[in-house]
Amino acid sequence: MYRYLSGVNSPQDIKKMNKMQMIELSKEIRKFLVKKVSATGGHLASNLGVVELTLALHKVFDSPTDKIIWDVGHQAYVHKIITGRKEQFDTLRQFKGLSGFPKESESEHDIFDTGHSSTSISAGLGIAVARDINKEKFNVISVIGDGAITGGMAIEALNNLGFLKKNMIVVFNDNEMSIDKNTGAFSTYMSKIIRNSETLIFKDNVDKIMNLTQVGEIISKKANRLTDSIISSFSPEQCGFIDALGIKYIGPLDGHNLDELIDIFEYAKHVDGPKFIHVKTIKGKGYKFAEKCPENYHGVGKFDYKEGVKHSGSRSISSIVGTTLSEMASYNDKIVAITAAMPTGTGLNIFEKFHPDRYFDVGITEQHATTFSAGLAKAGMKPYFAVYSTFLQRGYDQLIHDVCITKKAVTFLVDRAGLVGNDGETHHGQFDLSYMNIIPNLIVMAPKDTDEMVEMIKYSERCDYPLSIRYPRGTEYYFDKSEYNLFKKEHSFENTPIDTYNIGNPEVIFDNITKKENLEKDNCNPEIKCSKKEIEDVKNIHNDDFRRKKIAVITIGNMLLPAIKAIDNIKDESFEYRIINSRYLKPLNIEKYLELLDGINYVVTIEDNVVTGGFGSNIEKIIAQNNLKTKLEIIGIPDAFIEHGDTEILMDKIGMSPEIIKERIIEFCR
Amino acid sequence: MYRYLSGVNSPQDIKKMNKMQMIELSKEIRKFLVKKVSATGGHLASNLGVVELTLALHKVFDSPTDKIIWDVGHQAYVHKIITGRKEQFDTLRQFKGLSGFPKESESEHDIFDTGHSSTSISAGLGIAVARDINKEKFNVISVIGDGAITGGMAIEALNNLGFLKKNMIVVFNDNEMSIDKNTGAFSTYMSKIIRNSETLIFKDNVDKIMNLTQVGEIISKKANRLTDSIISSFSPEQCGFIDALGIKYIGPLDGHNLDELIDIFEYAKHVDGPKFIHVKTIKGKGYKFAEKCPENYHGVGKFDYKEGVKHSGSRSISSIVGTTLSEMASYNDKIVAITAAMPTGTGLNIFEKFHPDRYFDVGITEQHATTFSAGLAKAGMKPYFAVYSTFLQRGYDQLIHDVCITKKAVTFLVDRAGLVGNDGETHHGQFDLSYMNIIPNLIVMAPKDTDEMVEMIKYSERCDYPLSIRYPRGTEYYFDKSEYNLFKKEHSFENTPIDTYNIGNPEVIFDNITKKENLEKDNCNPEIKCSKKEIEDVKNIHNDDFRRKKIAVITIGNMLLPAIKAIDNIKDESFEYRIINSRYLKPLNIEKYLELLDGINYVVTIEDNVVTGGFGSNIEKIIAQNNLKTKLEIIGIPDAFIEHGDTEILMDKIGMSPEIIKERIIEFCR
Repeated sequence: MYRYLSGVNSPQDIKKMNKMQMIELSKEIRKFLVKKVSATGGHLASNLGVVELTLALHKVFDSPTDKIIWDVGHQAYVHKIITGRKEQFDTLRQFKGLSGFPKESESEHDIFDTGHSSTSISAGLGIAVARDINKEKFNVISVIGDGAITGGMAIEALNNLGFLKKNMIVVFNDNEMSIDKNTGAFSTYMSKIIRNSETLIFKDNVDKIMNLTQVGEIISKKANRLTDSIISSFSPEQCGFIDALGIKYIGPLDGHNLDELIDIFEYAKHVDGPKFIHVKTIKGKGYKFAEKCPENYHGVGKFDYKEGVKHSGSRSISSIVGTTLSEMASYNDKIVAITAAMPTGTGLNIFEKFHPDRYFDVGITEQHATTFSAGLAKAGMKPYFAVYSTFLQRGYDQLIHDVCITKKAVTFLVDRAGLVGNDGETHHGQFDLSYMNIIPNLIVMAPKDTDEMVEMIKYSERCDYPLSIRYPRGTEYYFDKSEYNLFKKEHSFENTPIDTYNIGNPEVIFDNITKKENLEKDNCNPEIKCSKKEIEDVKNIHNDDFRRKKIAVITIGNMLLPAIKAIDNIKDESFEYRIINSRYLKPLNIEKYLELLDGINYVVTIEDNVVTGGFGSNIEKIIAQNNLKTKLEIIGIPDAFIEHGDTEILMDKIGMSPEIIKERIIEFCR
Repeated sequence: MYRYLSGVNSPQDIKKMNKMQMIELSKEIRKFLVKKVSATGGHLASNLGVVELTLALHKVFDSPTDKIIWDVGHQAYVHKIITGRKEQFDTLRQFKGLSGFPKESESEHDIFDTGHSSTSISAGLGIAVARDINKEKFNVISVIGDGAITGGMAIEALNNLGFLKKNMIVVFNDNEMSIDKNTGAFSTYMSKIIRNSETLIFKDNVDKIMNLTQVGEIISKKANRLTDSIISSFSPEQCGFIDALGIKYIGPLDGHNLDELIDIFEYAKHVDGPKFIHVKTIKGKGYKFAEKCPENYHGVGKFDYKEGVKHSGSRSISSIVGTTLSEMASYNDKIVAITAAMPTGTGLNIFEKFHPDRYFDVGITEQHATTFSAGLAKAGMKPYFAVYSTFLQRGYDQLIHDVCITKKAVTFLVDRAGLVGNDGETHHGQFDLSYMNIIPNLIVMAPKDTDEMVEMIKYSERCDYPLSIRYPRGTEYYFDKSEYNLFKKEHSFENTPIDTYNIGNPEVIFDNITKKENLEKDNCNPEIKCSKKEIEDVKNIHNDDFRRKKIAVITIGNMLLPAIKAIDNIKDESFEYRIINSRYLKPLNIEKYLELLDGINYVVTIEDNVVTGGFGSNIEKIIAQNNLKTKLEIIGIPDAFIEHGDTEILMDKIGMSPEIIKERIIEFCR
């Protein structure tokens, strides 16, 4: 079926091929990608765009001696295919299978783990500097896209590269579309270059030089000088910046023309110093559905490759966020929405449709996005920054320094909180509860289900404080207690609505302890100091109850549902329960919690965040500081980086599936 | 004494002045600055450099209607002087006195709190966007230095500004020296402009336009068009980048020429869209000592202004870090040192002297610096990134994503941990123990004194893991237990050296519990199940001891000394102590701690970090998970932003002076 691909087991096999064979191989790789990714889900359009680029890099450079670093990393599938991993593609992004990103632990050809954007030039520069100190010889190539290069970190690194003048190649993969369409003046600036036909002359000249002579040491020196003059003849408003940084600008090249790519890479290999090679590619290249609508083929689930991706009926949580905020903005003209290059992922594409003037896609710039939001709040707007949990780590300093010190009323809609599944280590939102827990002045909420999330977002409008609402990846889900036959009795605690006046109040979901507690209280209020006899009387009346263990299960966010499933399965055990939806990470209404924990023997907290420093530790503090006699079990993500795989499998492996939660509760209360 | 300055109580008073009067005022302000700052300490050179710039801004623009945002903010003294705060300058940076940074809570003229660098364009853009949505009319001016503009966040914001095309002015204050001398290709690129005499023609042209016509709506439109053509006639390799972003480049101007500054600001006020005005200033201008050696006058303590700053005899902790690392690098050629534009502050200027080839000042780029270090580690080097605790927040994502997921052996030398004193909210290193506590694979240490710090840094060489060593601001200090007469008995626990094989082991500093504990154990080992009679016998023998309370005081880092002072003052109380220096935040050797906490009634932890999520919470976890019966008091920085003032005063106010620690221990154990 794959005439050429079947023989490719390492980059050495590419080197033996002539260009015609490589063109055929490109076609086969595209077929392979579409078939495999449609079966497993994964990143498709970006990989279809870099087939020739990847082949050309491996043809010219000697991986792993030469170091190829893939920025963001979700476009490294072709690299994986030709570095001995094609047989494992059926396991792509599956538990214990091939990672969807470069992984140093997976192959010596994966030089640096990536996942978040804009890191490749920094990492590459570190490697290049080390190489020179150690007097080694190899090439370093960082491949970075037009989205990632808008991240300030990439410019910081380019700046440093120009200063240090290290021998290194930055391949600028310009597909004119990052995850969503690119924004920002800088990308306009970059893409201007491609449209300037004058600059294309350069390529022709280089081609001629390359054709006239043989590639080698002498040629490279010649070309070096020639190129210097060619580059300085560029229309300088187009590439002046890269040039002024002390980095040689080369391009633009047709990223689907193998000849062109190989010639220029060969040439660049022999030019000393930092080089910036501008390559123009088409996302989704070669697969008609993806070429037509590449944003639908960025990250895909399983689909029929003959039909293309079909939208499912169920709504994503993110889209409901976008719709809710959009509705609120219709009557509140102070509401503005900010995304860092993730309009579709965060659901803000819906907001954009209805309120384009109050919608801001600021590029992959979580630092700027956070402080920009603070500026908007300062000037009287009501800003909402929708951002993935793992990416908000990039705006951590700004969250503290520009939002929380001065209590700016910015709302963070923290998407993809908890485990995200197949993207793995770099993308799980497993730290946010902990890293936000320590920031003064910040209110942090997490809803039990999609309805409550909408309620919280609506509440945020009345909240004049820095506020964060975190919710998981996935489709809408709802808590329907009528489903759970465990709940024979209703609780008698009064739940207050989510409101400015009730900050920190949890919600009691179920309670079959209350009645007896009240009875005990009536008969034996410690302040009344009842006699031993009286206590015995009460005990005899409620003999059965007294033998039973009293457990409070306190969950935060979406952990209520698995908790309830778990408890529903412990019917035979002699436990009594109080099930509490915390709603808040912080602040917590301590008095309310003391009331709820009164008389409880065992407390179990459940959160999809690392066990250290998150919600459980806040309950631990309440217990310790008030000398409660209750025992505590904190259930959460272990203090480790969690691999990739389906979320259900991962939750099982880390001991957080409903079944294991059940076992853990029974074991804990034994 | 101050003929002109004495009459300046608001920006309105500047507007009445003619240019000759303003020149005299500039001189008076410089005198005022030198006298006041030499008496209180503070930032001097940067403020001397912006006297005319600040006066010109307030002459032309109407603060606070027009919004002036000072990036970094330590150069806002002149702004404070002329916005009604000159009488408070004797209290500068003192507790409850004037802040050394813009503070929204201090004056309506302080538009946005700053402290960390590179935030002003983002904040200003947010304000400008809000203004346009609200159909308001005012000017927004962000003043940013050549150091701050190397921060990626500033470029992210410039990019977004060009895209949004908002009416806003970026004043680029180019003093060719950020805190230390500037590095990076980008600043070379910027400073190239100033050296190009051709571009100066522009200014003359504009001046002529301004002189020929009256300023007004029509003129501004005219100038707008004229300027377009003038700007496009610039030598494009010099300012092509700003121009290509869609931002009008204007400059460079002489930042000490009031005429020039006022004319151009008047002109810029009437030109629509984003403008970038390049102003050239001299740090330390007008004070001979500071002009000669501005890096010594960045942040200064008190000094005799007639003599200039003299170096004190005692060594800073940072300089000892630099010396230690430098010595290690002499025999280990894999050691490299990285700083984000803080060579002197971190002590790495010493390293640079001896090992210039392995020293990297990468500019104000904590993101890049962190991943660059990871790249160096990947390629076999032993990188040390010396960085202030509060600035490491900028590299938080990279610390997690690029260093810790793949366990790269980068060592973070975390300087200025804990309260830093007079710089206040934005600069205290009060969160690092908590935000590092949750990162898997990271080892975090903190030394009790300067000797132990050196020991830890030496240990780091053998540590093949991500490692962080945090230490406070200040001069060297040493723990000398012979000073404390409390210590009658030595402990009998064996302390292990700091070593790869002893990770997580604390050090027992003092112990007068051990002997009795051992006796109890001998007589009453729970596994032997001794009789009640036997227990009574032991109790009678050690009757005195049994009445006494057993307290473990566990400190992290520099909190050992105040803890010992506190305990030294509780001689009359009937307490017995075990004093423990934790050495590690994490991991902790749980077994060792269980041994040390065995039989203890009261545990007190002390850390100069917020009480939430830090060292105390780790001990709390050990106590809770092992069902110890001991009570715990966590002493630390409250969960709040801490104002500025001398560290001693602040420590007292937050309840962490030795005296208050003493009271808290007595109260807790009562």
